[in-house]
Amino acid sequence: MPRRDLPIGVFDSGIGGLTVLAALRARLPRESFTYLGDTARVPYGTKTPETVRRYAEQVTRRLVSEGVKMLVIACNTASAHALPTLRLAYAAPGREIPVEGVVEPGVRAALALTRGGGIAVAATEGTVRAGAYQEALRRLAPGVRVEARACPLFVALAEEGWTAGDVASLTARLYLADLPATGVDTLVLGCTHYPLLRGVIEGAVGPGVAVVDSAVATADAVAASLEAAGLLRPPGAAPPTVRFQVTDGPERFARVGSLFLAEPIPEVSLVDL
Amino acid sequence: MPRRDLPIGVFDSGIGGLTVLAALRARLPRESFTYLGDTARVPYGTKTPETVRRYAEQVTRRLVSEGVKMLVIACNTASAHALPTLRLAYAAPGREIPVEGVVEPGVRAALALTRGGGIAVAATEGTVRAGAYQEALRRLAPGVRVEARACPLFVALAEEGWTAGDVASLTARLYLADLPATGVDTLVLGCTHYPLLRGVIEGAVGPGVAVVDSAVATADAVAASLEAAGLLRPPGAAPPTVRFQVTDGPERFARVGSLFLAEPIPEVSLVDL
Repeated sequence: MPRRDLPIGVFDSGIGGLTVLAALRARLPRESFTYLGDTARVPYGTKTPETVRRYAEQVTRRLVSEGVKMLVIACNTASAHALPTLRLAYAAPGREIPVEGVVEPGVRAALALTRGGGIAVAATEGTVRAGAYQEALRRLAPGVRVEARACPLFVALAEEGWTAGDVASLTARLYLADLPATGVDTLVLGCTHYPLLRGVIEGAVGPGVAVVDSAVATADAVAASLEAAGLLRPPGAAPPTVRFQVTDGPERFARVGSLFLAEPIPEVSLVDL
Repeated sequence: MPRRDLPIGVFDSGIGGLTVLAALRARLPRESFTYLGDTARVPYGTKTPETVRRYAEQVTRRLVSEGVKMLVIACNTASAHALPTLRLAYAAPGREIPVEGVVEPGVRAALALTRGGGIAVAATEGTVRAGAYQEALRRLAPGVRVEARACPLFVALAEEGWTAGDVASLTARLYLADLPATGVDTLVLGCTHYPLLRGVIEGAVGPGVAVVDSAVATADAVAASLEAAGLLRPPGAAPPTVRFQVTDGPERFARVGSLFLAEPIPEVSLVDL
């Protein structure tokens, strides 16, 4: 199979990365994808950086052994802790498999949107503590004011399907409603679960704060990266395929995941890493 | 060390079991405890029964190798899937380490309280699907009407410390407020996180429904078991000790866990299973 016909490997600790896959499919409708959710070891956010790196390397090794032309780390925790290691191992000459994470695309999109006010990042406790968004923002725009907010309830709300309604709105207001008053004009959704709650989040911060979905920004970065490498599938190629693999609980993945992907997930294989 | 002076081993997939430890300490103030939270692999609820059994065996082997006089499985998922195996391995003649789980004590307490109406169990998705409460209730009281309710948001609310206030009350009402109208008169808290939300849960179901805390019922069962085996520490023994071990993230365990134990957790060791 010509290299450009290979699928793009997308991985996450669980189901959240499916919002990134949804954005990728919308942006790159001719591409094939292999998604691997490490559901046996989810969540990564509460684990140590060394453990997350080891898990990410195992998942990546598996995807690469199956044949992928590019890797997308559709997980904030793994992007924060494992992206440099994985780039070094796979993107280097000899292998030339581009590797993209979700942090830097989200940060670049936020910097393009801000009107000079502060930028806030809403994320899980683990991502806030890891500090990857704060670090990337300060590196790319040293003067920018950065605020990180942990919103742990959002993951449970998204997985429960409570993405609108009183509980979701009230929770979003408790976490984020004071952001405009602090001068923030841009909010990055730094967790792959949060795009499902975009409506209540926008409601909580009001029209003066632009909300950036990292998944969409990541899809743009992946498209640019494939184009630069001459790896886009050409028009008229065979219909693309999408495969799903998990390390535990394929049935729950299919059921809850379809909310995240916004389409049914017909078949999920169980893999052992 | 005389056998009765050994600690009681308490294990859970994470921090939830600390509500059971709190109840055990209140009920058995002269006893020493060793708590092991398998935080590297939390949550167990989304994993397959075989995986949960394997993990529970690893944790138990570790506790037994350190020397414990009794084992308490302070985790609903592990109680559901691993209790018979662990009893067979450890409680049998030769070793005689009694093993207690959280499911059956909660069920017996509910059966003692019901006035003939239905009994409901509030638990995680995994526990509801595993069906251990429903099965135990049907086995011990074949005629009883049983209703199981998954309340996945409760775990996130407890870990966030949002145990009172509008979000918690509203969530509890959405999950449980219709129970009295269905004839339920007793509600078992079938997740070790839920005792933290007891106030809003009682508010949601109203005064006509008795709420059973499995942790308290388990502590009573453990006390009875130790007494029957002649393993209670006598008055005047040396002051008891409490040790905490986790498989990942000792710092978060100490911080969030102190909410669950309702006292500070001074020192947490990291163990590799």
